[in-house]
Amino acid sequence: MSALFDPLFGADRVAARLDDASWVAALVAVEVTLAQAAAEHGVIPAVHAEAIAIAATKLDVDVAALGRAAVEGGNPVIPLVRLLREAAGDAGSSVHPGATSQDVMDTAAALLVGWAGEVLLDDLRGAADAAAGLAAAHRDTPMIARTLGQQALPTTFGLVAAGWCTGLDRARTALARVLAALPVQLGGAAGTLAALHPHGPAVAASLARDLRLADAAPWHTERTRVGELASALAVAAGACAKPATDVVLLAGTELGEVSEAAPGDSSSMPHKRNPIAAVTARAAARRAPGLAAVLLAAADHEHQRAAGAWHAEWQTLDDLLRAAGGAASRLRTSLEGLAAHPDRMAANLAMSSADSDAGHAGDLVDRLLAERP
Amino acid sequence: MSALFDPLFGADRVAARLDDASWVAALVAVEVTLAQAAAEHGVIPAVHAEAIAIAATKLDVDVAALGRAAVEGGNPVIPLVRLLREAAGDAGSSVHPGATSQDVMDTAAALLVGWAGEVLLDDLRGAADAAAGLAAAHRDTPMIARTLGQQALPTTFGLVAAGWCTGLDRARTALARVLAALPVQLGGAAGTLAALHPHGPAVAASLARDLRLADAAPWHTERTRVGELASALAVAAGACAKPATDVVLLAGTELGEVSEAAPGDSSSMPHKRNPIAAVTARAAARRAPGLAAVLLAAADHEHQRAAGAWHAEWQTLDDLLRAAGGAASRLRTSLEGLAAHPDRMAANLAMSSADSDAGHAGDLVDRLLAERP
Amino acid sequence: MSALFDPLFGADRVAARLDDASWVAALVAVEVTLAQAAAEHGVIPAVHAEAIAIAATKLDVDVAALGRAAVEGGNPVIPLVRLLREAAGDAGSSVHPGATSQDVMDTAAALLVGWAGEVLLDDLRGAADAAAGLAAAHRDTPMIARTLGQQALPTTFGLVAAGWCTGLDRARTALARVLAALPVQLGGAAGTLAALHPHGPAVAASLARDLRLADAAPWHTERTRVGELASALAVAAGACAKPATDVVLLAGTELGEVSEAAPGDSSSMPHKRNPIAAVTARAAARRAPGLAAVLLAAADHEHQRAAGAWHAEWQTLDDLLRAAGGAASRLRTSLEGLAAHPDRMAANLAMSSADSDAGHAGDLVDRLLAERP
Amino acid sequence: MSALFDPLFGADRVAARLDDASWVAALVAVEVTLAQAAAEHGVIPAVHAEAIAIAATKLDVDVAALGRAAVEGGNPVIPLVRLLREAAGDAGSSVHPGATSQDVMDTAAALLVGWAGEVLLDDLRGAADAAAGLAAAHRDTPMIARTLGQQALPTTFGLVAAGWCTGLDRARTALARVLAALPVQLGGAAGTLAALHPHGPAVAASLARDLRLADAAPWHTERTRVGELASALAVAAGACAKPATDVVLLAGTELGEVSEAAPGDSSSMPHKRNPIAAVTARAAARRAPGLAAVLLAAADHEHQRAAGAWHAEWQTLDDLLRAAGGAASRLRTSLEGLAAHPDRMAANLAMSSADSDAGHAGDLVDRLLAERP
Repeated sequence: MSALFDPLFGADRVAARLDDASWVAALVAVEVTLAQAAAEHGVIPAVHAEAIAIAATKLDVDVAALGRAAVEGGNPVIPLVRLLREAAGDAGSSVHPGATSQDVMDTAAALLVGWAGEVLLDDLRGAADAAAGLAAAHRDTPMIARTLGQQALPTTFGLVAAGWCTGLDRARTALARVLAALPVQLGGAAGTLAALHPHGPAVAASLARDLRLADAAPWHTERTRVGELASALAVAAGACAKPATDVVLLAGTELGEVSEAAPGDSSSMPHKRNPIAAVTARAAARRAPGLAAVLLAAADHEHQRAAGAWHAEWQTLDDLLRAAGGAASRLRTSLEGLAAHPDRMAANLAMSSADSDAGHAGDLVDRLLAERP
Repeated sequence: MSALFDPLFGADRVAARLDDASWVAALVAVEVTLAQAAAEHGVIPAVHAEAIAIAATKLDVDVAALGRAAVEGGNPVIPLVRLLREAAGDAGSSVHPGATSQDVMDTAAALLVGWAGEVLLDDLRGAADAAAGLAAAHRDTPMIARTLGQQALPTTFGLVAAGWCTGLDRARTALARVLAALPVQLGGAAGTLAALHPHGPAVAASLARDLRLADAAPWHTERTRVGELASALAVAAGACAKPATDVVLLAGTELGEVSEAAPGDSSSMPHKRNPIAAVTARAAARRAPGLAAVLLAAADHEHQRAAGAWHAEWQTLDDLLRAAGGAASRLRTSLEGLAAHPDRMAANLAMSSADSDAGHAGDLVDRLLAERP
Repeated sequence: MSALFDPLFGADRVAARLDDASWVAALVAVEVTLAQAAAEHGVIPAVHAEAIAIAATKLDVDVAALGRAAVEGGNPVIPLVRLLREAAGDAGSSVHPGATSQDVMDTAAALLVGWAGEVLLDDLRGAADAAAGLAAAHRDTPMIARTLGQQALPTTFGLVAAGWCTGLDRARTALARVLAALPVQLGGAAGTLAALHPHGPAVAASLARDLRLADAAPWHTERTRVGELASALAVAAGACAKPATDVVLLAGTELGEVSEAAPGDSSSMPHKRNPIAAVTARAAARRAPGLAAVLLAAADHEHQRAAGAWHAEWQTLDDLLRAAGGAASRLRTSLEGLAAHPDRMAANLAMSSADSDAGHAGDLVDRLLAERP
Repeated sequence: MSALFDPLFGADRVAARLDDASWVAALVAVEVTLAQAAAEHGVIPAVHAEAIAIAATKLDVDVAALGRAAVEGGNPVIPLVRLLREAAGDAGSSVHPGATSQDVMDTAAALLVGWAGEVLLDDLRGAADAAAGLAAAHRDTPMIARTLGQQALPTTFGLVAAGWCTGLDRARTALARVLAALPVQLGGAAGTLAALHPHGPAVAASLARDLRLADAAPWHTERTRVGELASALAVAAGACAKPATDVVLLAGTELGEVSEAAPGDSSSMPHKRNPIAAVTARAAARRAPGLAAVLLAAADHEHQRAAGAWHAEWQTLDDLLRAAGGAASRLRTSLEGLAAHPDRMAANLAMSSADSDAGHAGDLVDRLLAERP
């Protein structure tokens, strides 16, 4: 989190759902809901679950102190459970029933990813809608296609923008599918639900229902879900990088075929008209592949709890959500305010092409827009 | 491709479907099928399509010469088209109708990925089946769960193996979905299908049908598909890394809970019993995330043909298929021959646990095996 | 920055030198020193430089507002210069003389990297010293070497620890060399120092001298230095990952050859003795390679200022410093409190080896310790 | 290795020094030289070393068979030693004295890297010299600087090219330093040189001397050297990516400020003038960061021989050498034939700037060229 840089890279809205306070809120929500689920199946007294819920609402967590206390055991759940137990009084012994730290961390992370993911889906949709608007408006606006940087043959700006839209829609659909399947984690110390026996699966199912997450058998060391999430985020960042790159190139002084609504100036050259939303969208998107690689490489969890690979996921996932979310947000700003300049497109087209026959371009625009999810 | 290293890392079977000759075969197949599709819709004479098909069967391509000739234009399609035109005599003018190099490269790559992907799916299934066999056989075999390297509480070897199976199945299902949707690429020089107008979409549909690929509007610079493929391969590699890591650890001398059927010896210590299939599976899997990151980062194609990002995909995709395929193949060997040693499991368990109550372990095994796709 | 997670991953000390306030302080320091350097060479009045320095000391920057204002132009220098100009009154026109935003950002980043780098060097040295202490104390303590997870032949714990020390020393020396060469950036809008002509190089040299950075011709789009820094940090993280991995493995219940001074417990198993410092060192180190890859990939700056690649460096560099710094800090804690257990080493050794002849092990320890930088 | 793709991406010259035959030659060279070094210190009879050398010259290794035989033990050294022992007759027992497979693999890899590295240094120098030639020739040729894609203020093409030169020189110097320090590896089964006691260090020193590698204590699990090599290669690729990117952009139809000597055509548009050398240099360079990340992540070798991390280095290092080498080779071709077009530069400059005052540009060119290593 950075108040200085997050807005610049479009990450402020996502970051607000991933900050320390959000993590604590998610961890507490998991503990409270777990207690309720355990009570539902008679694992703990219902009155204890209620007392825990009430204690949680009154809990005033000093995040910095919690962070320092987390060092000893290697995660913030251990000291948080201690706080909750103290706050819950007689119900303290019923806090964290049958669970292990990873259960709470993984389930809280699923909640957070869902919260932040909503913002991402919204910005991906907004960017795609803006691209679709440009595609419809410029369905037949001729421009020169460029391949390997060289003028090639005619196309239309509408087809270019329709291609942007398709990529953004595809990435959003794939991400939405992953987000909709985010599961709870509940396995207990060894992943066998032993401490909840014979109510383990039922408690997990109730926990999932109440947190609006998917139910799942323990997946504590089976991390394909994390890899799929990381991939969907990196693909989304890539889907933003393509139009952002085109905007930067098309806005170049010599091409001048598009311009942003609020181009940036410069500390030394006030006359500059920099397509700064697209520039910062590209910057944010560039961070995603390396972060995704860290998460993909972290699949090799040892035994029944990884000694590092698991812990490496937490902040990397935050960072990746901020990078992909930032790219989507900045691209949306760029595209929602993007002006196309058909005169410049025509002039550039005339450099190498006597006619402007763009083949199936218009039909392809119609097809791509009709196929939108 | 390496005759020296591919077998060692399990990549030989995949590599045989990705070698230079396979690339040439796929490129030729695309050109021949494209000519037939064009003839079907009256774009070129049917007799020309037949002549091209016959010429292709007689074509004796010198791969090294083709590789050298590819330097000039930046891809092997340009010189291959030249060869085909010469070989096709009067029909030469009908070779490569309405297409651009990227159409042929991308469609050929889809074919190759499909061919290599079959091997991968087969090995992922084989490895998962082996894991499922171990899970069923050892549903109730007690062992100690280990978290952060420390003995924790009892589980069963069956549940451990069932977790391996689940990851492998999930990765295979996701990969199969991507492979089933591999599309043709046909857009022509500017992505507008101008040179095939008004038959462009119909020719593309016929091409897709005949090559058993999905039909699609031109996606030449919309690379979410490549990112999704890369991700599915990296997730598959990760799903192999988890059990391979466990096998290496469980086979350690002090634990001794599993052993491979054909452990390797050493050039200096003939008595060693190295779990070499798992070791090399891990090695292959470790290469996947960085390769996937290269492909995810290559989403930022400029304009209507990227000046480098596209070209960077070809060999990276080959390498990633070999890495993921190698991991699956070596893991399959490891798991198909894996022996579990319940006596050692019991002895280790006794170090820290008086009983062997594994909670829901057996039920979870049943559930995970019942949920197999 | 995260108060919740930074302490856990050893990043708090480094993070305190990289937070938003540190960035603002560095940016202001560069502007003040640049004005002084410009005054020294008669580019601006000396009295203006003094007024700017005084105004800077009184400047009360609202970081969140600055962050929001940075969005428009794409970096925080533009609004900061505006603030400084307002604060400096008549001297306002002399603020930011001859400079462009990148000059100030790059030079400030060099300052920050230097500040954070000191912490990193200190922790790398502390960790190496602790390893050296273990190596000297256990020069002749027999243990079994393990290769591919299997017991092999005897070595000594001293030689193992000496190897840790060597890696940490090598990484520290390489990083120190990079840090000692961190340069100023001063090129102006086009990298030609035009606005400072004919005093440009002299002003740059004074700026370097006063900020204790290296002098350099403008390197605004020549980013090998960033790549070298990223690499040195990732190598340092790797040098920490090796001993951290060994500690986790050697501390495993069945091996029991080492233990940390303050092992962590668990939220579900209070009896656990988790080597949590080593675990979190591994977690931090795992994040470095992907972050380094982002920086290495960002070398392709376009023209005279990159449209995204440059901006992608800022937070990635922060994150990489935190990851590498965290690994060093946590490893230092692990090694400074590490207890070796010769009895367990002897017992394990006896499993596969009748004698404990460790060849040159003792001599190699002496050699490695004697070669320490 | 790919006859189809290596020439296209400039990797053929490097690849010829990294192919299977080169690996076998390097492995054999290490075994022969090791026997001679062992004989020099009386570890084996001198007559045996001679017999081994003679047997090696007659050895006709079937690489594919060796590759298949390598599967069992996990590396090609084990079956190669078997072949050599058979070929050496009575001297067979003296083959591979005191060594383990990793000694031979690591030392052979050092040889191979040195061989391939020579090509890389040569191409980096060639590219830098070409850039220096352009810088000198166009020291005062005015052009517009572009920042964030927008025209900014005047510079000279000479200063742009001098910046390219500086990056290439810096990368080459750093790589040369790493290559000059490539060491032998000799530690024996446990890294203690036990089987050579008391002659171990002396044998290692002789081996280093005869192979022209650096002497070193065993570094089998201390992989900072591998990380440094990977980094230097990735930085070199990045130093190539910058000028390649500029060439692609400056050669764009609308800018037209440079052109390659042998631009590529297209399969569909014969009139195209694609800067294909720069395009393929970019493509090759893009593969480097992900490959470097794999090697940087592989630092976490377990115990005294890593169970996968070590094996993952071999082909990744080959691939990275081909990627970086290819980028250097293709960039050299691009720059050696690059034509600058001052008329187009002047015309573009006139779009936004009334004068062409490039400040210190000429002086900076002189300084950068004078500082060349």
